[in-house]
Amino acid sequence: MLLAAAYVSDARYNRNILFETSPQSIRLYRLYNHQVMEAVTYFFILVDLALALFEDPAVYLLPVWATCAVELVCLLIFTIRLVHFAKVTPRNKFWKDMKNICVILTLLLTLFDIILYWTLIATGYYIIRWSRVMRPLFVVNFTESRQIRRAFRNIRNTLPEVANVFFLFMFSMVMFSLMGLKIFSKRHFETAEGTSYFNNYLDVFFDLYVLVTAANSPDVMMPAYNASGWYAIFFIVYIIINTYVFMSIFLAVVYNNYKKHLTNEVMKLVLLKRCKMIEAFKLLSVKKGTEFVVKEAQWTQLVKLVAPDISNSHRELLLKVSQEEQEKYIGKDSFIRLADLLNIKVITMKTRIHPIETWMPKLYNSYVSQAIQKMVKHRWFVYVFDIIIVINAIFIGLDDENSMISNAEWIFLSLYILEILLKLYVYEPKTFFARNQFWNWFDTWIIIAALLATTINAVLKSSGGYTSQQVLDFVLILRVLRLVRIVDSFQRFRVIMNTVINIGPTMLVFAGLIVVVYYVFAIIGMELFKGKIKFLGTNSTDPAADFCGNPKLINSAFAMSKYCKNNFNDIVSSFIILLELTVVNQWHACLLLANGFVAVTHPSARIFFCIFHIVVVILIINIFIAFILEAFLVEY
Amino acid sequence: MLLAAAYVSDARYNRNILFETSPQSIRLYRLYNHQVMEAVTYFFILVDLALALFEDPAVYLLPVWATCAVELVCLLIFTIRLVHFAKVTPRNKFWKDMKNICVILTLLLTLFDIILYWTLIATGYYIIRWSRVMRPLFVVNFTESRQIRRAFRNIRNTLPEVANVFFLFMFSMVMFSLMGLKIFSKRHFETAEGTSYFNNYLDVFFDLYVLVTAANSPDVMMPAYNASGWYAIFFIVYIIINTYVFMSIFLAVVYNNYKKHLTNEVMKLVLLKRCKMIEAFKLLSVKKGTEFVVKEAQWTQLVKLVAPDISNSHRELLLKVSQEEQEKYIGKDSFIRLADLLNIKVITMKTRIHPIETWMPKLYNSYVSQAIQKMVKHRWFVYVFDIIIVINAIFIGLDDENSMISNAEWIFLSLYILEILLKLYVYEPKTFFARNQFWNWFDTWIIIAALLATTINAVLKSSGGYTSQQVLDFVLILRVLRLVRIVDSFQRFRVIMNTVINIGPTMLVFAGLIVVVYYVFAIIGMELFKGKIKFLGTNSTDPAADFCGNPKLINSAFAMSKYCKNNFNDIVSSFIILLELTVVNQWHACLLLANGFVAVTHPSARIFFCIFHIVVVILIINIFIAFILEAFLVEY
Ligand code: NA
Repeated sequence: MLLAAAYVSDARYNRNILFETSPQSIRLYRLYNHQVMEAVTYFFILVDLALALFEDPAVYLLPVWATCAVELVCLLIFTIRLVHFAKVTPRNKFWKDMKNICVILTLLLTLFDIILYWTLIATGYYIIRWSRVMRPLFVVNFTESRQIRRAFRNIRNTLPEVANVFFLFMFSMVMFSLMGLKIFSKRHFETAEGTSYFNNYLDVFFDLYVLVTAANSPDVMMPAYNASGWYAIFFIVYIIINTYVFMSIFLAVVYNNYKKHLTNEVMKLVLLKRCKMIEAFKLLSVKKGTEFVVKEAQWTQLVKLVAPDISNSHRELLLKVSQEEQEKYIGKDSFIRLADLLNIKVITMKTRIHPIETWMPKLYNSYVSQAIQKMVKHRWFVYVFDIIIVINAIFIGLDDENSMISNAEWIFLSLYILEILLKLYVYEPKTFFARNQFWNWFDTWIIIAALLATTINAVLKSSGGYTSQQVLDFVLILRVLRLVRIVDSFQRFRVIMNTVINIGPTMLVFAGLIVVVYYVFAIIGMELFKGKIKFLGTNSTDPAADFCGNPKLINSAFAMSKYCKNNFNDIVSSFIILLELTVVNQWHACLLLANGFVAVTHPSARIFFCIFHIVVVILIINIFIAFILEAFLVEY
Repeated sequence: MLLAAAYVSDARYNRNILFETSPQSIRLYRLYNHQVMEAVTYFFILVDLALALFEDPAVYLLPVWATCAVELVCLLIFTIRLVHFAKVTPRNKFWKDMKNICVILTLLLTLFDIILYWTLIATGYYIIRWSRVMRPLFVVNFTESRQIRRAFRNIRNTLPEVANVFFLFMFSMVMFSLMGLKIFSKRHFETAEGTSYFNNYLDVFFDLYVLVTAANSPDVMMPAYNASGWYAIFFIVYIIINTYVFMSIFLAVVYNNYKKHLTNEVMKLVLLKRCKMIEAFKLLSVKKGTEFVVKEAQWTQLVKLVAPDISNSHRELLLKVSQEEQEKYIGKDSFIRLADLLNIKVITMKTRIHPIETWMPKLYNSYVSQAIQKMVKHRWFVYVFDIIIVINAIFIGLDDENSMISNAEWIFLSLYILEILLKLYVYEPKTFFARNQFWNWFDTWIIIAALLATTINAVLKSSGGYTSQQVLDFVLILRVLRLVRIVDSFQRFRVIMNTVINIGPTMLVFAGLIVVVYYVFAIIGMELFKGKIKFLGTNSTDPAADFCGNPKLINSAFAMSKYCKNNFNDIVSSFIILLELTVVNQWHACLLLANGFVAVTHPSARIFFCIFHIVVVILIINIFIAFILEAFLVEY
């Protein structure tokens, strides 16, 4: 029975782990999959990643022994988790799984790195803590992160095809550069800045590469175009082929592969789920007549084990769906469907009786109360509040120094609270706050937060005349967010918003992916560039503030644009600068950023920025778009 | 019989025209669909569009009476075509068709415009020839341009959904601008240039709109980010929502609609084709036993009428496919398939005998000749020529002033000619130059052109020592294009290239669409901005050359970047500046361009540039990407 429950549970959550079938192993396996154990693992992965906040270069510097100690604790937890897994799974399967090998290697290398670091420190040397780059491997390789791993597998599968297109693209670039060089170099044109134009192969190549992102259009064309209109043809053909056709093909290939592999993965999952359910069925079934069936009692016990949190009525509903014609048995096909049935969220559609009606039926059904209910359910009730929202928007736009307007805020707040209270009076609270009622939750939280923040603000103001700007900002954001509700009043917008809300959770997988990639680049970036560029504050009187504390940046465009805070001096700054590099359209600014770091280190630093560009912009952003396209096609 | 032929022909070419069924009408209808008639219509549409080259502001100015005369001729031709169509189609259908109404209105308005223009000229007034904007309507509305019309229909169908997302997007923009203004304006930050930051609602809105195209990132964020890292959250959330999510949703909605409507259109076409074929079958069929059939003689006569250009053997093949079991009749289902069968290009797969073998069998089958054939068919033959291409590429990259290298060009050229001759010796010429042998055609044309150009160049050089730079450029481009052939040697690249080549023809429909849109904007742009910005040549000694001949541009960024040639002074320049505006990523440059025109006219000129941006970038470019995505999914 326990084994059957384990199979059903695996099928339900799409787990794919082989485990031994001895009773002890099964109990261990249930423990392994317990929510608390998973939460602990996730927590320590987060702690391990968060260590970057406290290690040099740090947001808040802790002594090295402290971070190392915490890291050792994390390693210990990971080892325990791994040993637990090794106990559950058959030995030969364990050593064949790349995930486990990868985790063991990472653990050993990290340990080795820590020991090496302290040994060298003791003998007076300094060494980089290079194993920090490997931390995201824990995120990817622990069995808990199935979805991120799937996303990575997707990228790996897409790589060969993208590489082919990339080679073709590079070939096209080389050809065009060759033509450009040969045609323009001997004509000795000059750029607007008076420098020579298309004179050196690498420069031409780089200029044309930048033209793909269209960042130097039309500047790169102007010298030739000014000389003769015919030269424009060269650039027009180039832009059509390399900017539009090739960039679309990149997206098409990524989308194509994404779709193909997604279908494969889904097929595999369905098959696996079926296999597990058949195994479970085999364990529980008894022969009845010519076919095998599962007895109702057995079935109920199983469901209680697998899903202890569902209500009796829900379980009875499932039973009714699974049973055929009043019989006390469940057939094979119905049994196999159980894994999917358990995942369906049952929304109680029966009209519950309002609690007030239960307590005070006379009052609730009185004439006035009926009128209120009719009013709230009327569509004009929605319209009136839409109008109030619009008026509120105008008031927010107006000058808030005026006391009349800041007092109006109280009126709006009370109107919104009144609205929620009225709705709660009319609609049954449990139905109103059902899981799928996104907007009701949204409204209520926003209003409660706004009420709290506005009160705090008023108290602060009246008590000392002092108002915290942060509280005011918070109130403002809440006020503006409140306006978002108006979108829900239009059917056409609601469809789009619901699609976005539905694909939201899967988007989080993407966020995980991005964090993993960013983390690796951030750690490398910090080791390469830490402390080279310093931000000394906006109002610093230190003359070094004008050149980011590095004399090599005196009079550089980087310092003049006040980019000093774009640095790799801690993990938060690193993430922000990587985001800026991702939003790559303005290559110009990217170049400016990259050039700043090249100036303070070495020209080869460009390689770091180039690799980041190719990985993130060509691959990950395209996969993101492919993902949205597919999700929209399915959901919309 | 004629009527049946007309039905089959319509089904074959996917025409959807109702015509009267009297014998005279059918003959008229056949004439109407004759290739020459269609070619004449296309030619005059082109002439009408090309008039913009010769009208003020002109590339080559012709007197107004000349262009007006040509336009009247065009109008006459269009009227004849329309009257012809009216004779063919039933009267009530003719007046119900929006296309015809549209053409008639355009004709009348153009005529009215011309008369008005001359009347006012005679009385001493001047008026704009406003009807020129309507010329692209002829392209769209004449029945010959089915595909462009379908593309426009597609856009029109996509509009409502895109508009919904656009409203949501604008709503999000308004909300963020409001928040940005309220949070940052009272903090009095300064930009790197020392101007005030986020101080005025419209400026904030515009800055954030530009941030969607990521053109002013990270500059727009820096003042706030320098003050506190927390402000970065505002911009990060903004970029994620508006740049990535909304822009992807735009693409997703366009792609979604494109796919949906494409399926609808294809379904409709298939249904219509079937109806026509059934009509034709009804006309020709006779009863035989319990079912209706078409006699073989009738069928042959029909095919001869519909497709007079196909060979006897091809027709016999079609007959064999259509006939069931040796009978002399064709059944209904086989008959309906005929429309599709006629469109299949039959590639003669039988190994033809080489003409030399026919003439001189002894020589062709001799030992030496056999050896040559074996060598050419060997895969090392391909490898050797790939290596030659690589060496050739290196030589092109080297300095071509060196006489040794320019002489090497002759060697390469002879090697390539030798390759083609050898292949022609080995493979049967008709097979070698079959329609689907893209690369053979490509190679041969390139080599012939290169041979001609190199010879002309050599003759010019030896005769007068004078070498035309244009000829040299042409030779160079041909040389570089020759290198493209190497792509075909790799299977993986060949697949991608073939996909691109296959979707090429349909891409031309897109080119047509873009030309129509550009033409309208170019005509309007010319009327608005002609002569405001002048390009006086690169080496002009006129001081006005420094400010594009307009004092309002003195010291402007527009003039300093030497953008003077980016103007609307003739239709060619207009098309080039519109292309530059399409490649919008570098919004910076776009702004620079737009600001130049705003400076010389009026701030409301911005509206022109904004509308162009929304139409072309959000709608047409996304449809282009959707089209490539879909084409790739089908072809790849
Ligand atoms: Na850009």
